Amino acid sequence: MQVHDTIDSFRKALDAERAGGRTVGLVPTMGYLHEGHLSLLRRAVADCDVAAATIFVNPLQFGAGEDLATYPSDLEGDSRLAAGAGVAHLFTPATSEMYPGEVLTTVTVAGASEGLEGGARPTHFAGVATVVAKLFNIAGPCRAYFGEKDWQQLQVVRRLVTDLSFPVEVVACPTVREPDGLALSSRNVYLSTGQRRAAPVLYRALLAGRAAAGAGAEATAVEAAMTEVVSAEPLADLDYAAVRDDRLLIAVRFGPTRLIDNLAMEE
Amino acid sequence: MQVHDTIDSFRKALDAERAGGRTVGLVPTMGYLHEGHLSLLRRAVADCDVAAATIFVNPLQFGAGEDLATYPSDLEGDSRLAAGAGVAHLFTPATSEMYPGEVLTTVTVAGASEGLEGGARPTHFAGVATVVAKLFNIAGPCRAYFGEKDWQQLQVVRRLVTDLSFPVEVVACPTVREPDGLALSSRNVYLSTGQRRAAPVLYRALLAGRAAAGAGAEATAVEAAMTEVVSAEPLADLDYAAVRDDRLLIAVRFGPTRLIDNLAMEE
Repeated sequence: MQVHDTIDSFRKALDAERAGGRTVGLVPTMGYLHEGHLSLLRRAVADCDVAAATIFVNPLQFGAGEDLATYPSDLEGDSRLAAGAGVAHLFTPATSEMYPGEVLTTVTVAGASEGLEGGARPTHFAGVATVVAKLFNIAGPCRAYFGEKDWQQLQVVRRLVTDLSFPVEVVACPTVREPDGLALSSRNVYLSTGQRRAAPVLYRALLAGRAAAGAGAEATAVEAAMTEVVSAEPLADLDYAAVRDDRLLIAVRFGPTRLIDNLAMEE
Repeated sequence: MQVHDTIDSFRKALDAERAGGRTVGLVPTMGYLHEGHLSLLRRAVADCDVAAATIFVNPLQFGAGEDLATYPSDLEGDSRLAAGAGVAHLFTPATSEMYPGEVLTTVTVAGASEGLEGGARPTHFAGVATVVAKLFNIAGPCRAYFGEKDWQQLQVVRRLVTDLSFPVEVVACPTVREPDGLALSSRNVYLSTGQRRAAPVLYRALLAGRAAAGAGAEATAVEAAMTEVVSAEPLADLDYAAVRDDRLLIAVRFGPTRLIDNLAMEE
């Protein structure tokens, strides 16, 4: 596996792969890789001639008071995991490489960015869309793999690609869960033992929402069913439980840690 | 010359050129080609293995009440001129091809977009940056040629390319002028005979500004020198005369027609 610190090196390496007739799979991440990321990497390795991953904790997508400074990181472990998954090119730029000066250009995606995460984190998806546009421009034509765990982000990226005609095929990959249903997230490490024990409440609430929907409940009653499950968990503080486009979406706080999850309304 | 109506056809044609080892020059235009455009086309033909041009009157960059509906057009004449200049690929998409649905994605470039044209036309540069990003994504790695006539647009595009790492080298080409100094513009056809006679006042004002700057005047005095020249022309209504980054910039209305021009402060 080649590790690239510079835009130029990563771009040239992928250009050379394509010039050799090989298709490129791209997995953009913020690092601290877990089995969810690894499922994306393995899928890219399986689908494409060469797989590339990026590890960049993008400051643009963190709001004031969010966890940019404490976001977990383990570049050495990540490199080992990526190499083990069969990644050929790993891009690990410093912030100064990605953003050498002030970033004056912003990409916004109306519609998909609004409400839910966009409501709780007003500048988040502009930060995501901007860095994804930049990573796509650096990586060039590819298949790009995103987890369904960040459902709204997936919709933002899909719309970005369609509206701006990026030469990228977006591939969505299912959420990977712990045996107790907790969706894998780099932020799970923030949880105390008690919070960790309570955290599967997100998935239980989603399942309750799905059951209510299956029994014919309207959206507001489905949302109420999810809310009720979270209310019964003392350590959990509900941010939202919502139905959008036949998807159930939920965000819950455990102290300072905020987790999200989602599920198709119908099995 | 191949004429492409679809994104897919144009993209594949340029991909094939690059796959054959040929460099691509791109000239994005709104059509109604004049000698200014032709100078860009000839430069692209001279610099690159193949030259591509796009003709698309981009609705996103026109504000309410602007001249989108009446913007001049002559696709047949343009095709002849492009072929004559040596263009290999001409992309002439319908609006429905570029924007089949609502455009929810917007690219904004702070700083460069502010004031001057951005002040007079608040959504203009977001429309420009969005369509240029899309055209770059469709065309792929290339040199892209832009006229200095639209100086602020050139700065917006340069910043867009830098911030989002487009695989594009922006090449600026000098403004082409009529013998009396009027900068070529597709909008010059809107001018009445009297207005046309008065229109070189923009260039005269720029030359007066340069002379003042050469004599050691401060920016406000340079702007005053330009303003004074325009004031003496009864058919001309000054929008702005400004100094920015060692450049003199001017916008003048002749009835409903608005013309812009600019000049380096030092020869």
